Amino acid sequence: MGELTVRGAPPKQDRSRITRQRLLESAVTCLAERGWSGSTVMVVAEHAGVSRGAAQHHFPTREDLFTAAVEYVAEERSAVLRRLPAPTSTRAAVEEVVGLYTGPLFRAALQLWVAASYEPQLGPRVSALELRIGRETHRMALELLGADERAPGVRETVQGLLDMARGLGLANLLSDDSARRGRVVAQWARILDDVLKR
Amino acid sequence: MGELTVRGAPPKQDRSRITRQRLLESAVTCLAERGWSGSTVMVVAEHAGVSRGAAQHHFPTREDLFTAAVEYVAEERSAVLRRLPAPTSTRAAVEEVVGLYTGPLFRAALQLWVAASYEPQLGPRVSALELRIGRETHRMALELLGADERAPGVRETVQGLLDMARGLGLANLLSDDSARRGRVVAQWARILDDVLKR
Repeated sequence: MGELTVRGAPPKQDRSRITRQRLLESAVTCLAERGWSGSTVMVVAEHAGVSRGAAQHHFPTREDLFTAAVEYVAEERSAVLRRLPAPTSTRAAVEEVVGLYTGPLFRAALQLWVAASYEPQLGPRVSALELRIGRETHRMALELLGADERAPGVRETVQGLLDMARGLGLANLLSDDSARRGRVVAQWARILDDVLKR
Repeated sequence: MGELTVRGAPPKQDRSRITRQRLLESAVTCLAERGWSGSTVMVVAEHAGVSRGAAQHHFPTREDLFTAAVEYVAEERSAVLRRLPAPTSTRAAVEEVVGLYTGPLFRAALQLWVAASYEPQLGPRVSALELRIGRETHRMALELLGADERAPGVRETVQGLLDMARGLGLANLLSDDSARRGRVVAQWARILDDVLKR
């Protein structure tokens, strides 16, 4: 954080932590709403109600800010994954998995992902993050579905489900796709029920 | 095109058509490689080897150029869809459908789609386009799979397959995902074979 820890001065540390937290949350919101090109450090600082100087103290460059925001998105998504209740049916499990791809966290991650395809500074960082999130999501999906990956085809079945969930998230980007999505989820939950219980 | 048709002067018309075509192709390439923020009319004109004045003659604004490029992407994708050979198996059909989402046309469309989520001028145009392409792709997928949509669940099964194809396209954005994709396609082709032939 670039700050000395002064004994007996927790308020300053707290303020610093709160400022950092607000900047990261604003970075995710700005990214989801305005895309990479519209999300500069100044835009994020203004959105967070933080001075430009304070923002630059925490994050000297735009890449620093959004790399930290990427990490923040990853941690938030992991927390979401861990908090998911144990589903009572395949359909509930599929709904939870698909739900990970339809909120503002996915929108922010998508903007970063797409920006990483043409921004050399972002590419390797975002690829590494996606690999990590992908593995964690896969493991969680297996648990939610009560599926055993040692059975032939189960790994690819669950991978395909996660690809479908990502595609459903993309379909929700420009308009509310929830009605159609609900029907697709219901049908594919029926199919998965058959496939996984065979 | 903003040009008078002069009798006996086809070369000028031809030149104009060729210039327009080159600008549209360059717009798609720039969009796929540099994203929306990196794709100005000047960048596209330079890529196409066309003077800025000529580019502005054809497309007075950035929105004009990329709206036309969106249309061009749509027409190219329709042409790709129509040229697809009749598949000999469910797996070949799934491979053809998924193949639509892994080339430069999908990359360009994805960049536009994501830009449309925060660029008000693009939003309605891209939504309308996606609706049209979505319907056409759905119809084509039904044909390729030899599926009858009147049977219960078939519509949602095919919609889910197209969502999966879109998610597979997204997974291919930052790195070559073809090996994993091949295994997912093989497994889901087996599942679809069962579901559609029931």
